[in-house]
Parts: sequence; structure tokens; C-alpha cells
Amino acid sequence: MTVVQRFSDHLPVPRTIGIVGGLGPYAGYDLVRKIFRWTKAGGDQDHLPIMLHSFPGWIPGRPSFLLGQTEENPGEDIGGIMEQLARNGATVIGMPCNTAHSPRILNVALERLRRTGLDVTFVSIIESAVREVRELCPGGGRIGLMGTVATLQTRLYQDELEKAGLEPVLPDGNDCALVQRAISDPEFGIKAFSDPVSPKACQILLDVAHRLVEEKRVSVVLLGCTEIPVAVTESRLWDAPVVDATSVLARELIRASCPERLKESSTFQL
Amino acid sequence: MTVVQRFSDHLPVPRTIGIVGGLGPYAGYDLVRKIFRWTKAGGDQDHLPIMLHSFPGWIPGRPSFLLGQTEENPGEDIGGIMEQLARNGATVIGMPCNTAHSPRILNVALERLRRTGLDVTFVSIIESAVREVRELCPGGGRIGLMGTVATLQTRLYQDELEKAGLEPVLPDGNDCALVQRAISDPEFGIKAFSDPVSPKACQILLDVAHRLVEEKRVSVVLLGCTEIPVAVTESRLWDAPVVDATSVLARELIRASCPERLKESSTFQL
Repeated sequence: MTVVQRFSDHLPVPRTIGIVGGLGPYAGYDLVRKIFRWTKAGGDQDHLPIMLHSFPGWIPGRPSFLLGQTEENPGEDIGGIMEQLARNGATVIGMPCNTAHSPRILNVALERLRRTGLDVTFVSIIESAVREVRELCPGGGRIGLMGTVATLQTRLYQDELEKAGLEPVLPDGNDCALVQRAISDPEFGIKAFSDPVSPKACQILLDVAHRLVEEKRVSVVLLGCTEIPVAVTESRLWDAPVVDATSVLARELIRASCPERLKESSTFQL
Repeated sequence: MTVVQRFSDHLPVPRTIGIVGGLGPYAGYDLVRKIFRWTKAGGDQDHLPIMLHSFPGWIPGRPSFLLGQTEENPGEDIGGIMEQLARNGATVIGMPCNTAHSPRILNVALERLRRTGLDVTFVSIIESAVREVRELCPGGGRIGLMGTVATLQTRLYQDELEKAGLEPVLPDGNDCALVQRAISDPEFGIKAFSDPVSPKACQILLDVAHRLVEEKRVSVVLLGCTEIPVAVTESRLWDAPVVDATSVLARELIRASCPERLKESSTFQL
């Protein structure tokens, strides 16, 4: 499809952003919202070109594969969606799901994308979030990490944080299980009740964040699961800055598409 | 792209929903949110397949064409996005922009879609909203109509409401201009400030709705511009039910994709 871009002449043509949605659906929509929110725009035409492909029924569960409960690797279908986005003109791709960034899944998906021969930039949510944390704590620090059991067990964030000279601090075992339930419990979890989120899921997440800050003395709380910021929208909790990986990914996608459109961040250093 | 659908065997495979976004961007995201909200889902995989293509920079302004300020018909580019969605497997298409449903624009777009020879259902936001209003007022009634000047001048809703035996009631001239400013004023309008909406835009819209209910004695307030429900989220105002055309479109798209997934509505008759 060839359509003339109508963006103002004095700005470069933005690259089209493709979003692998459906992992879960609300995380995809949350990312779209945050891209809009962080875009400098005075009207419709100033917003960036975005495609969100949300096909949750196509993609097998990520945690069940990573935890060895099934051999079906979701990377193949995720790669299929990336390929579809790329063939439609997306040259910058993001995926609002931390768990799916596990190399055992992501490498399969990116290999499929690579085979298309198309020139596409994949923006990693993990690398983006760790870079943001590093900017907050240039001298190092204890980083409280909240995520799914699968994300924690595969050490997605821990390895990257340590490489950046930061100390990952996990909730206690019971708290990790509670965070997982706040995300995926069929009775009150965010994946089942997203709009509005159940008070129980919110309370669990705030309690765990509180214990990270008050008992484990972390300097930053890193929300390392894209369902969590659907519930926890605070930018600070008990004086600790909260890094929302979805919001950071939104900013990085704008930067990769058209840096001139990125709003200033109020990021500050500790 | 061929991917096996993983939906439960006892439910039919849902049809993929394509959304023409970017008109404006927040209306597209608002529609996605409302589709999720109205879908019966206990987890990721239960949600419907959705593509949102938001290319605001591709599409010339709709009001300026309808009001004769330019000859460039946005229908051609809108049709291009519909074609792109259809070629990617969307068989149900919705467009969250009332103004773009004007026949002078929509017919051009649908003609382009028709030329693809693909079997696609286009769900009209106008027809869906008027059907909903008719169900609320089976015996007829005065329907307060809020929308852009272009939507009102092209009588998109008025003609459909009258065909359904309902009496469209417009805000006074000054109020119509105020609604337009609440939508598109570069200093405080929803298109420039959507998240959050400016208090001024909210207040204007509520004041106009108030005058429709209190002075013009309408039975229902119909939000006939997809920017308005980004600001006005009440389901009743001064005892009059509010019909949000975006929410109605969301329900109709789910019904067209997979009626078994549609949550019950709390619709009641007057």
C-alpha cells in the first residue's frame, strides 16, 4: 500500500510502529495509550503511525512453556505476527510482554522476522527498562523487581540489571506467588479483570511493593510485567520511583520512530 | 498467514475485527478498550482477534472536506486502510469516527474495499447507535444529538433518527460551536488534550448536555462524535441515558465477530 505521508515538511517521516498485542490484550492497549500520551501532538495528524495486532487466541501461554508444562513454543506464532506487521510496513516493533522476551521464546520469533529480509528494529522492553533504571541510579542501587514467576525464574531482568551494575531484589517466595496470582488468578487476577482491576489484585501488588521498599530497602520498584501497570499507575510508592516497563517501551518506540515527537520526560536521578 | 486458532472447541472461531484508527487516535484506542470491556473473557486467549491500524498522518481532515474547505476526499485513504485490514484477514471492520461515515466519504472508502472482492462486513457506527437509541425509546422520543459541526450539517444522524421514528434535537447554534471547540480547539480540545482531557472541554460538553436535558427536554443524549466519550464517561446525565456511539459500535463488532462472547448489556427501555 502506498500512501503519501501528510506530516509537516519540516519533520522527518516517522517510521511505522508495529505492536505485537494479545499478550495480554490489555497490555497492548496500555502500550498504545502510553505511546499517544508521550507523543508531542496538537491534533490527529501529528500522531505516529501505529499498528496493533492483538491475536491472543493464536498464541499459546508463555509461562506454561517456560516452566516446562508444555513443549509448544509460542515464539513461532509471535514471530508470525511480527512478520505480518513487518510486511505491512512496520519498521519498528515492540512487544508489551516481559515473559515473552525470554530468549527461548524471543529468539525463535526474531529468527522468523529475520528470515523476511526486511529492515526492522525490534525494541526490547527488558533492555529499555534496565537502561531507564540505570539512568535513575547511575551509582548503582537495590532494584525491587515485580514480575511473573516465569520472568523471575528465567532471570530476564536479573541478568540485565547485574550487567548494568545494579542489584536485583526479589520479593520473598510467598510474595512472588502473590504477584503471580494478582496477575493470573481466574477469580480476581488482572488478566481476568482488567477494566476495572479488582481491588484485591491492586492491594496485593501495593502490599508487595510496600514490603520491597520498607523491608528490603530498594531504591526503585521495577514493574517487570506489563499487566502490573494496568493496576499500579503511581509513579512513586513510599518515596521510591516506580519504573513502568510499558511506559519506558512506549518512549523508546517513539524515539525509534520519530525522536522529534517524543515529549520531555520528568526523569530524575536518585 | 495461517495460524491455527486455539479457541475452545465448543465455540465457533471468531471473525477478526479490523479497526480503522487515527480518526482520531484516541477514538481508536477507546474502541479497542470498549471491545475488551464488553468481551466475556477469563484470560488472554478468550479475547477476540483485533487489528487496529492507526495512521492519522495518512488521512486528510474529514470536516474540512465536508465543509468544502478542501477538495481532497479522505475516503480514498480510509478505503486504503480498510483494504489493508481486509487483506490481513479482517472480515469485520469498524471505524470509530462519525464524521467519516458521511456518504460522500464512506462510499468512496467502501467502494475501494468492495473492489478487493473480499467478503467483509462493515459495521456502521451510525446505524448501530440509532438502533440502540430506538431500543431505548421504542415509542419514539426527543433525542439530543452532540457531534461535530460537519456531522450535524451533513444530517448523518438526523436522517437515520427520523427514519426510525425519533426526533433529533440539536443544541443551539452557539452550543454546537462550543461542542466543536471542545473537540478540536488547539488550546483545550480533546484532539489536542486527550489523556487527561482538559477540564474546560469536559465542562463545555457537560453544560451542553445539561441544556439539552433541562431546557430542550430530550429523553436520551446521543454522543455522536467518538471524541466526546473520551471526555464524557457517564452512562446517565440528569436522569437521561447517554448513548455512547463508540460503546455501541464495540458491542456490534463483537456480535459480528463472535456473538457468544458478548457480555450482557444493562440496556433498559424508557
